[in-house]
Amino acid sequence: VTKTVGIIGGTGPEGKGLAARFARAGLDVFIGSRSAEKGEEAAAACAELSGGKVSGGTNAGAANAGETVIVTLPYEGLAETLKPLAPAIGAKIVVSTVAPLRFGGGWVDMLPTERGSAAEDIQLLLPDARVVAAFQNLAARKLANLSHALEGDVIVCSDHAEALQEVIALAEAIGTRGVNAGALANSRYVEGITALLVSVNRNYKQETAVRVVGI
Amino acid sequence: VTKTVGIIGGTGPEGKGLAARFARAGLDVFIGSRSAEKGEEAAAACAELSGGKVSGGTNAGAANAGETVIVTLPYEGLAETLKPLAPAIGAKIVVSTVAPLRFGGGWVDMLPTERGSAAEDIQLLLPDARVVAAFQNLAARKLANLSHALEGDVIVCSDHAEALQEVIALAEAIGTRGVNAGALANSRYVEGITALLVSVNRNYKQETAVRVVGI
Repeated sequence: VTKTVGIIGGTGPEGKGLAARFARAGLDVFIGSRSAEKGEEAAAACAELSGGKVSGGTNAGAANAGETVIVTLPYEGLAETLKPLAPAIGAKIVVSTVAPLRFGGGWVDMLPTERGSAAEDIQLLLPDARVVAAFQNLAARKLANLSHALEGDVIVCSDHAEALQEVIALAEAIGTRGVNAGALANSRYVEGITALLVSVNRNYKQETAVRVVGI
Repeated sequence: VTKTVGIIGGTGPEGKGLAARFARAGLDVFIGSRSAEKGEEAAAACAELSGGKVSGGTNAGAANAGETVIVTLPYEGLAETLKPLAPAIGAKIVVSTVAPLRFGGGWVDMLPTERGSAAEDIQLLLPDARVVAAFQNLAARKLANLSHALEGDVIVCSDHAEALQEVIALAEAIGTRGVNAGALANSRYVEGITALLVSVNRNYKQETAVRVVGI
């Protein structure tokens, strides 16, 4: 199982929440950012929150440091940030947590993608990487609250069977259940759940997640 | 709350399963089919299974008999079957249980729709109706097994607030929880979950459903 994760675009709420959970689980975490300073600041905050090993710096630093690389960028920033990192990432496992959402006044919509999902677009940008879609549906605020056990499942999609199992193990490391949902193309439906939960959250004033029942 | 439901295209596994559940819950159910004889046959089987009141006949009969009309047609048959029924349906609540799926050898895909989801296309075909999307994610075989308590939530979307609440009450009548997911346009994500669960079911050799956690 992966011992080191590098988080690209890791200074937002989702990235910091995952960083804290992985660090608490005993993994070495590297938080990357466009600005090395912001990466270092986020790392210091996550180290304190989790009591674990978290360092930080640039996104290139995260691409190099992580055995497994986790992408927590907004959809619009993917190409610009990831293309230059392709050589450093090579054939590593790359976890897409991205949901291509666009927020309006009282609504949320999904942005058009090249291939049908953000995760497939990442595979297009990083053709040698073993892309796995996961962790899109965990609420950032609940991730960051380490005293709260996560209730939601992590639905995992990939065209690389070993990488998929590895990410299921990562999901289990932070106390969630990883559910094998097959091919990477299925990530479009998981990204859609993120959009759906925005509306559910608004109606119930809660931060919700989903569980698969009947397994 | 609705006392009578008419099920259009109700002789398939999903229609018969819902019919049996609603009849068991004490509602009057009318199962419609292209062939009156098939509708009557399915009704007799459901009446016996549920011990409830189930009659059957044509789809026009279902459109007339139901205070609320439930559509369990395949996506491809929607326009042909529903357009002629528009006058009979009028402003009734119409529940779309349809997921626009296309099955290949080892895969499932979503068919392109006019408006983004089968439910929105039904609203286009029946402009006066109050369309509500619901019940897409309950496995037909589990619906038909009346000794089995349904574990999955019913995620409900509509642009008609009162109709949405009415369908949440219908979901609760069969022992499930209805979750308000807002606008009818969100039904695309719920229909996507149906596609996603096909892959999960294949991987785990189970008939799964989803629950929203954190409400």
